Amino acid sequence: MLIRPAEAADWESIWPFFREIVMIGETYCYPDQITSESARSSWMTEAPGITVVAELEGRIVGSARIGPNRDGRGAHVATAAFMVDPRSQGEGVGRALAEFTLDWARTTGYRAMQFNAVVATNIGAVSLWKSLGFEILATVPEAFDHAADGLVGLHIMYRSLLDRPILRSESSMRRVPRG
Amino acid sequence: MLIRPAEAADWESIWPFFREIVMIGETYCYPDQITSESARSSWMTEAPGITVVAELEGRIVGSARIGPNRDGRGAHVATAAFMVDPRSQGEGVGRALAEFTLDWARTTGYRAMQFNAVVATNIGAVSLWKSLGFEILATVPEAFDHAADGLVGLHIMYRSLLDRPILRSESSMRRVPRG
Repeated sequence: MLIRPAEAADWESIWPFFREIVMIGETYCYPDQITSESARSSWMTEAPGITVVAELEGRIVGSARIGPNRDGRGAHVATAAFMVDPRSQGEGVGRALAEFTLDWARTTGYRAMQFNAVVATNIGAVSLWKSLGFEILATVPEAFDHAADGLVGLHIMYRSLLDRPILRSESSMRRVPRG
Repeated sequence: MLIRPAEAADWESIWPFFREIVMIGETYCYPDQITSESARSSWMTEAPGITVVAELEGRIVGSARIGPNRDGRGAHVATAAFMVDPRSQGEGVGRALAEFTLDWARTTGYRAMQFNAVVATNIGAVSLWKSLGFEILATVPEAFDHAADGLVGLHIMYRSLLDRPILRSESSMRRVPRG
């Protein structure tokens, strides 16, 4: 699997699964009727952040957006968001993107990574983050209107990037040079 | 004290204390060098949110911005931000804005209010929110680079708007009609 910076032309490969994931309504707070242009503007971030794609056999199967969680005096904590094509689930795409993201954030100098809104019923994501050293700082009760389950909690998850090595799975991920 | 919706022309009264508060560097994550235009664009929000000002003897002494904390499936939880002119501290401006904000959010149909980044050393704000029924859900460690104290925590604070009355202090606040 190749993780590389996204280029503008990649959006047409990301948008179909981005839209599908938002329409399913179980993981993200994007508006259901979000347009491609609005989603692109939100997802395809610029410096100091970065958007990457995961390629598997030449096909884009996932994407991640990484950058500062806040501006100014809060910009030393990173955040990230992830989209994996539902047709490629179970192939380690999320984990490969997650590991790249943690490496990128640590290398770039962020002190920690924070997720502001992990849907509590998204067991796969929660397990992945826990396996990568994240803890649940808190759960905001009933903060997400899940399409199937109704009102469920949103986890705030956190991981320092200073004090512990990033546990690495046996992924076949290849990394592009950074810097 | 009058709390009323902000008009475009109010920005020139808000910007001086907004800038001063950001420059002090003890409470907000706006960039230190934020421009008036960028700050205006961030602060003077539009529907479904609202920006209000607090007037005392004809002078604008504070402002609040209220709206959904997230889009789409998270839009039933409100958030808010507050700026009080340092020259008017101790006059109940923050409390009057806070009470208006809670009333507005509850009346508008929000189920809860969440603050994402209350600087842990901002004792006045933390005390105010606690007195109005908020609890600290979690503290993100060292997430704010305080100009005087260095790295300090950011509280995530939360209050349901469904189950408890909003405690009201003896403020002389007058409210404008809504709806």
